[in-house]
Amino acid sequence: MKLLNVYTVEETRKKIDTYFCKEYNLYDEIHVTDAFNRIVFEDINSPIELPEFSKSVVDGYAVKSKDTIGASESMPVFLDVLGYVEMGKDAGAMVQNDATVYVPTGAIIPKGADSVVMIEYIEKLDENTIAVYSSVAPGQGIIQKGEDVGKGELIISKGKKIQAQNIALMCAVGIEKIKVYKKLRISIISTGDEIVDSFGKVEIGQVRDINTHLLSAMALDSGAEVELQILVKDSFDEIKVATEKALQVSDIVLLSGGSSVGAKDMTINVIEALDNGEIFIHGVAVKPGKPTIVGKVDNKAIFGLPGHPSSAMIIYRIFVDYLIKKLYSSEEDKILIDAVSSENIHSAPGKETYQAVDLYFDDNEYKAIPVYGKSAAISKVARSKGFIRIEGNKEGIKKGEKVKVELFNYS
Amino acid sequence: MKLLNVYTVEETRKKIDTYFCKEYNLYDEIHVTDAFNRIVFEDINSPIELPEFSKSVVDGYAVKSKDTIGASESMPVFLDVLGYVEMGKDAGAMVQNDATVYVPTGAIIPKGADSVVMIEYIEKLDENTIAVYSSVAPGQGIIQKGEDVGKGELIISKGKKIQAQNIALMCAVGIEKIKVYKKLRISIISTGDEIVDSFGKVEIGQVRDINTHLLSAMALDSGAEVELQILVKDSFDEIKVATEKALQVSDIVLLSGGSSVGAKDMTINVIEALDNGEIFIHGVAVKPGKPTIVGKVDNKAIFGLPGHPSSAMIIYRIFVDYLIKKLYSSEEDKILIDAVSSENIHSAPGKETYQAVDLYFDDNEYKAIPVYGKSAAISKVARSKGFIRIEGNKEGIKKGEKVKVELFNYS
Repeated sequence: MKLLNVYTVEETRKKIDTYFCKEYNLYDEIHVTDAFNRIVFEDINSPIELPEFSKSVVDGYAVKSKDTIGASESMPVFLDVLGYVEMGKDAGAMVQNDATVYVPTGAIIPKGADSVVMIEYIEKLDENTIAVYSSVAPGQGIIQKGEDVGKGELIISKGKKIQAQNIALMCAVGIEKIKVYKKLRISIISTGDEIVDSFGKVEIGQVRDINTHLLSAMALDSGAEVELQILVKDSFDEIKVATEKALQVSDIVLLSGGSSVGAKDMTINVIEALDNGEIFIHGVAVKPGKPTIVGKVDNKAIFGLPGHPSSAMIIYRIFVDYLIKKLYSSEEDKILIDAVSSENIHSAPGKETYQAVDLYFDDNEYKAIPVYGKSAAISKVARSKGFIRIEGNKEGIKKGEKVKVELFNYS
Repeated sequence: MKLLNVYTVEETRKKIDTYFCKEYNLYDEIHVTDAFNRIVFEDINSPIELPEFSKSVVDGYAVKSKDTIGASESMPVFLDVLGYVEMGKDAGAMVQNDATVYVPTGAIIPKGADSVVMIEYIEKLDENTIAVYSSVAPGQGIIQKGEDVGKGELIISKGKKIQAQNIALMCAVGIEKIKVYKKLRISIISTGDEIVDSFGKVEIGQVRDINTHLLSAMALDSGAEVELQILVKDSFDEIKVATEKALQVSDIVLLSGGSSVGAKDMTINVIEALDNGEIFIHGVAVKPGKPTIVGKVDNKAIFGLPGHPSSAMIIYRIFVDYLIKKLYSSEEDKILIDAVSSENIHSAPGKETYQAVDLYFDDNEYKAIPVYGKSAAISKVARSKGFIRIEGNKEGIKKGEKVKVELFNYS
């Protein structure tokens, strides 16, 4: 077993960038209305301009603005009403000098008009005549053809997660099908002589599988899909067979180590024994999560994650999720919540410390409460809403200090 | 048409509470591993205690702590090694006075031992003897049976959205099936003489349907499902038929009004014409979204939303999403982001103002940039990440002022 350097988070991410530099270029072409929460595969530009015609943004009368010059409460101007525009129809009449056409909000502006006087500023004298009590400037009351979205304008960029607003805009310009990244396939192998199926019979000394389900749900949250879930004993052969099987159908394989001494070495030995298996990270200067392993087989990533769920969750977020976002060309869409630490938090000297916290909103600010517990405690995982990052050169956080909390969950 | 009062957001929500006070009590019983992002139907308690047996949290030697009293670097105590505990197995040996049993992390603590000395503090003298260089207190190195989770302890409460951490904890205690709220069924009726199918042919004067798709995606984001999407002209009969059809299969019906003058009245007339139709909100003191309508038919809610997408999005979030959360017994899981306003923002005197904003992270803080544009502009919807609420008695927001931004999207 080679000894490798222990890297910082930054260095580890740079290594991940270097080793997985090949673009992930598989996509699904789907209907835009099925695209909620999918990731855009390529920049999408508008095929048309919006609005497609100049239209009124008020209920009012389309006029030539010059005809309203000087109009006021005490000195109205009088205009002939030539007709009205029906919603959804082309304008029937053209606006002449000293004349007008009624336009409801959203209706097309008839030719000859350059502005719309709101109905609040007119008085209907008879069927064919109105008094206008206010002047309007050219363009007033109108949204011009192409003013909102230009033809060819970028409306959503590669790597963005599609939200309701984006679907709305794509529908507005008539885009029916779009390309989104094919979901990355993740398989999870949980190892440990003591780990058994969560829902089967449990003998004394055994514990139910947690990490398979924790990591599967986190993979869904990252926009990936879970291909295989395999539970194996701490056996070189079993782990190797499972890893080979997983690699065949996955882009990323997560090995969640048992907590026994030998388990970590076994993950390393297995990766090194695979054809083209290569380990480039073996140990990170992070508390918790020192025994993290990152390797690859061809273009497929293999992560060895800590066995304790709370550590696995943090390492997943800072490295696995990082790789997924990178492959999806995504900006990190993490959300940082400003909070105040409810307690002193210690950090590990010389290491970045990631402290899981609970959050509650009180007195108009978020309080971050560090979630402690023995490392084997599972309940602390469920209480953790996010985590605080403490830099390696910083000596912990004081009670009352402002912190930024990154949420564990995107949804 | 009766004239009703114009209510504040707070008053409108109280009305919603009053009119929809009947508990929504439909559930699906599903496998816990399918429960990601579903809403818990009833409090879930642990059927067992965790851990199920006292276990070691370190690799070390299980001892009687009294035997280590006084042990130090210069004065070790010597213990007989009686054997070891295998991971996942019951302990084979019992710890006697002045003797010890090896336990890996996670292994069961053998009878007779009350603590574990980490391997860092021992020296193996021969196969059957160790020297212990540090004393341990009772309980040290052990997580006790039931210390993590008590039998019957609440592990997730009714109304919570299930995240990865919660799935992990439920798997840890062997809960296989759980009850989650049956998804509320939402139907969306978009009205407007000018509105046509987003993906079909568009004649001059017509515009593509936006709101159906915007509101559908928002409904998914709220944890509901979309039952029907119906596009109709601004015709009393068409709207009435569509509403009746939607009410048969939905819990909530959203009417997204055309922007023409008559459309709002038509929504009101239709609701009043339905059997047991009742309107209790007609106009809210909110900018934008004054023409909001809330009514009911039996236990089903009908909302009349503003036609402009940006207004519809805000009214959806402050009222429709509010009702959905209420029916799901959910605490509001909105996230408030601390940001600094990049500009002066005006508010409407006497009304709560909701200003859509874009957000970007710069110089270690979020900047909130108000998204303006003519009300008919669609592109501004897509640029809106969230909104700022300005109270009715507050005169706008100054550039550089701290604001709280509520995100439009949960996921």
